Amino acid sequence: MSNAVDQARIRRSFAKQTMMETLGAELSRIESGLVVIEAPILPSVRQQHGAGHAGLAFTLGDSAAGYAALTMLPEDNEVMTAEFKINLLAPAMGVRVIASGRVVKPGRRLIVVTAEVHVRAEDGGMRQIALLQGTMVPIPAG
Amino acid sequence: MSNAVDQARIRRSFAKQTMMETLGAELSRIESGLVVIEAPILPSVRQQHGAGHAGLAFTLGDSAAGYAALTMLPEDNEVMTAEFKINLLAPAMGVRVIASGRVVKPGRRLIVVTAEVHVRAEDGGMRQIALLQGTMVPIPAG
Amino acid sequence: MSNAVDQARIRRSFAKQTMMETLGAELSRIESGLVVIEAPILPSVRQQHGAGHAGLAFTLGDSAAGYAALTMLPEDNEVMTAEFKINLLAPAMGVRVIASGRVVKPGRRLIVVTAEVHVRAEDGGMRQIALLQGTMVPIPAG
Amino acid sequence: MSNAVDQARIRRSFAKQTMMETLGAELSRIESGLVVIEAPILPSVRQQHGAGHAGLAFTLGDSAAGYAALTMLPEDNEVMTAEFKINLLAPAMGVRVIASGRVVKPGRRLIVVTAEVHVRAEDGGMRQIALLQGTMVPIPAG
Repeated sequence: MSNAVDQARIRRSFAKQTMMETLGAELSRIESGLVVIEAPILPSVRQQHGAGHAGLAFTLGDSAAGYAALTMLPEDNEVMTAEFKINLLAPAMGVRVIASGRVVKPGRRLIVVTAEVHVRAEDGGMRQIALLQGTMVPIPAG
Repeated sequence: MSNAVDQARIRRSFAKQTMMETLGAELSRIESGLVVIEAPILPSVRQQHGAGHAGLAFTLGDSAAGYAALTMLPEDNEVMTAEFKINLLAPAMGVRVIASGRVVKPGRRLIVVTAEVHVRAEDGGMRQIALLQGTMVPIPAG
Repeated sequence: MSNAVDQARIRRSFAKQTMMETLGAELSRIESGLVVIEAPILPSVRQQHGAGHAGLAFTLGDSAAGYAALTMLPEDNEVMTAEFKINLLAPAMGVRVIASGRVVKPGRRLIVVTAEVHVRAEDGGMRQIALLQGTMVPIPAG
Repeated sequence: MSNAVDQARIRRSFAKQTMMETLGAELSRIESGLVVIEAPILPSVRQQHGAGHAGLAFTLGDSAAGYAALTMLPEDNEVMTAEFKINLLAPAMGVRVIASGRVVKPGRRLIVVTAEVHVRAEDGGMRQIALLQGTMVPIPAG
């Protein structure tokens, strides 16, 4: 199964990101080139109007896309964000954020990624709140 | 003093951002078109290698730039992030993050902003870790 | 037919863009929220290694996305690029560039768009060379 | 003079960019980490309202920043645009575009750059029309 994704490797790295724990985030899907991270919109991550801070959408989208990139790299590689761009589409009003990171173009030196961030409302309705596009860089694992 | 900045207004809004409290962030400078926000690199905001998460630099840079924009808007306006782009220049290794947001081009409908994010090392040395460029949108205050 | 796109309106505006004529570009598809523009990779639009200049991919992607936005706006509106981000995925080596602009999120004040740019090789093979994400702003027609 | 910039090398590469000739562009300044490119706003590079196309600002900014990066690289390197973001600040109305590219952070794998684009009006007045931020990648010279 040469294309099987080593999920344990992604989970080990994720568990070391204390920021993910602070946000209450968890990995909900790991496939080759696709990783989904979810988190509640905690009282502790709001902006001044009570919606989730733009930084919440960014942080989850960035981690989801970074791990999506990592699924396509050899075991002895880690991944680092070189740059990312986010467009905010709607305020993060609701109960849960779902960030889906995808690899658009893998590469030896640069990996182009996107992420879509949705919010689930109390009534279960889903709404996209952000779209991200950026670049991850493989680095030798420490 | 028609150009004096209403610092209390910025501080009131900042105090409502629970995300800032979660990050241990504080406002350290408020001038017309320039706001600086600082935060320690807490154990709770790290990525998998122990550096501050890219989301930390983004979140502080975004808030600093947003408040820089707000200093140039009438009292009955709030501000919202439309989009932002971040280039990460170096890992956030050190003790403190300093994010300086600036207005490049004010406007009635769009405000173009930048932010520079630096880290102060234990020995006091400063290093730029991120550069951001984006767009804020004025909205009528709730 | 309330959803019919006024193609003539898009074509009239396109015909006024002398840059499109300079690049040899033409409109090849106009639907609600989707516009495709194509151009040959002329000898006059190359970078130093003989591939199409990054500015070619950007310019066609920008116009395609701008017109995609315009298809969703009332007759008395024009559209202006507020900002755009491009990731170059591969050199523009081939005979023809095809830029597909799409509306991700329409809005009264901001329209979020994307564009994919492909190159057709001499043997007919297609390759994506760029991905763009940005913001268009409706303005009253002059 | 170890820091002297090999201007001839930049000029040779620039002369091969047929896009620059199409735009009437010329190199007006070459220093370590800073390159300025200028061009008239020709009748052939307009958008639908008679201003210079957004693609003109992007293309000149991209080349200026790319050559700024090249001034800091060894002789056996070329440079390629990985990604770029542009904010348009004002329409390109005037007689001449001046694009100034600067290196923000040199690196062995990634070079972070910015570009400012100004327009000179008929009366000599200068106005900034665009701000760019992006990433260049060194590649071995062909």
